[in-house]
Amino acid sequence: MNLLLLSNSTGESGYLSHAKRAIADWSAGRRQAAFVPFAGVTRDWDDYARKVQDALVPTAIEVASVHRAAEPQRLILQSELVIVGGGNTFHLLHHCRRLGLLDAIRQAVAAGTPFLGWSAGSNLACPTICTTNDMPIVDPGGLDALGLIAFQINPHYTNAMPAGIRGESRNQRLAEFTRLRPDVPVLGLPEGNWLRIAGERRELHGPHASWWFQGSDEPRSLAAGPLAVQP
Amino acid sequence: MNLLLLSNSTGESGYLSHAKRAIADWSAGRRQAAFVPFAGVTRDWDDYARKVQDALVPTAIEVASVHRAAEPQRLILQSELVIVGGGNTFHLLHHCRRLGLLDAIRQAVAAGTPFLGWSAGSNLACPTICTTNDMPIVDPGGLDALGLIAFQINPHYTNAMPAGIRGESRNQRLAEFTRLRPDVPVLGLPEGNWLRIAGERRELHGPHASWWFQGSDEPRSLAAGPLAVQP
Repeated sequence: MNLLLLSNSTGESGYLSHAKRAIADWSAGRRQAAFVPFAGVTRDWDDYARKVQDALVPTAIEVASVHRAAEPQRLILQSELVIVGGGNTFHLLHHCRRLGLLDAIRQAVAAGTPFLGWSAGSNLACPTICTTNDMPIVDPGGLDALGLIAFQINPHYTNAMPAGIRGESRNQRLAEFTRLRPDVPVLGLPEGNWLRIAGERRELHGPHASWWFQGSDEPRSLAAGPLAVQP
Repeated sequence: MNLLLLSNSTGESGYLSHAKRAIADWSAGRRQAAFVPFAGVTRDWDDYARKVQDALVPTAIEVASVHRAAEPQRLILQSELVIVGGGNTFHLLHHCRRLGLLDAIRQAVAAGTPFLGWSAGSNLACPTICTTNDMPIVDPGGLDALGLIAFQINPHYTNAMPAGIRGESRNQRLAEFTRLRPDVPVLGLPEGNWLRIAGERRELHGPHASWWFQGSDEPRSLAAGPLAVQP
């Protein structure tokens, strides 16, 4: 299995720029990518696919978006790479389920097709979308997702709050999840971080510590390098 | 219909203290309240009911929590007031649906029982929970909710972001909802504000401007006083 799961898309020097080398390494010379733009809501899907294509020019990856495919499942299964962009996770899951893409992506990844996701795309790789930060703007027909990994990711992880706001902090929200599901850990990936899975190798990358939440344990800080926890 | 829908529970001087006079006015001398604690996740439901009871001592309202009732639907239908507390909206809806409380509450409110909600409780009063800020930690069995009002509420409304965070702002999230559902407006209630509905009277209260989101219109600022929009 070859997964690259980014917290977010936008680095200080531009779109996907912070992960350019990681994406080149992940793609391993493969070029034909199926792109899933369905997390885009206010963003037009053609524009979204173009933006991703532009960002990936240096890697020689060529993007074909599933929303333009006559047979989206077939596009997934016949592509050398699968890329799932960020946006709204509920919208993404709603359309993937509607088009039968969940099974197609699972099948492709099981057969060795590398999978890249960021933000909502990383949420989709998890057992469920229960640890997304997004607003439930549309019914996704169930919260179960791809299950490419056995734990949850919380992208854009931070425990900071805007001044004067009394709503729940991120840690409180994640504690609610791990109270209900003590069997399912959550990896909090701050902006700029990512998880790379290549066969048995599982590594954290990026400038910040990541965080691990499980059951009623105190959140555990994880440095970049091999994932030091056993989900 | 007699509704009091608060953005949040905690004012600067304590739990529910900012809305003490509004609650006294809303209850109109009725005393027996059914309390719905199911938005509580890490908070024990007995503790939650006690905390609400303590806060309501000055109003003479007596709280009976539905989680202790042998017949929760009957408790709702036989009480003089219905109170739904905040916490996680998905957890709240999950348990209300499981126990058949949605129809019971709708029936009680239609028969004139005053309804008080805050945060997740205010989300529950809306057509759907699509504009909650909460994490989808459990499957609510569908996003449809009580539909006591014809528009959505976004509680804890703010467009502020923690420094350095690149995720979506609240306005971007709400714009995604109104893009998908241009027919359903959203009332953004900042901390400390509330909406009172008493028969034909609909009023905004609290120290801040509230905000109205509809379709692709610019967000509209609403001052305290009669609701100046026609949903």
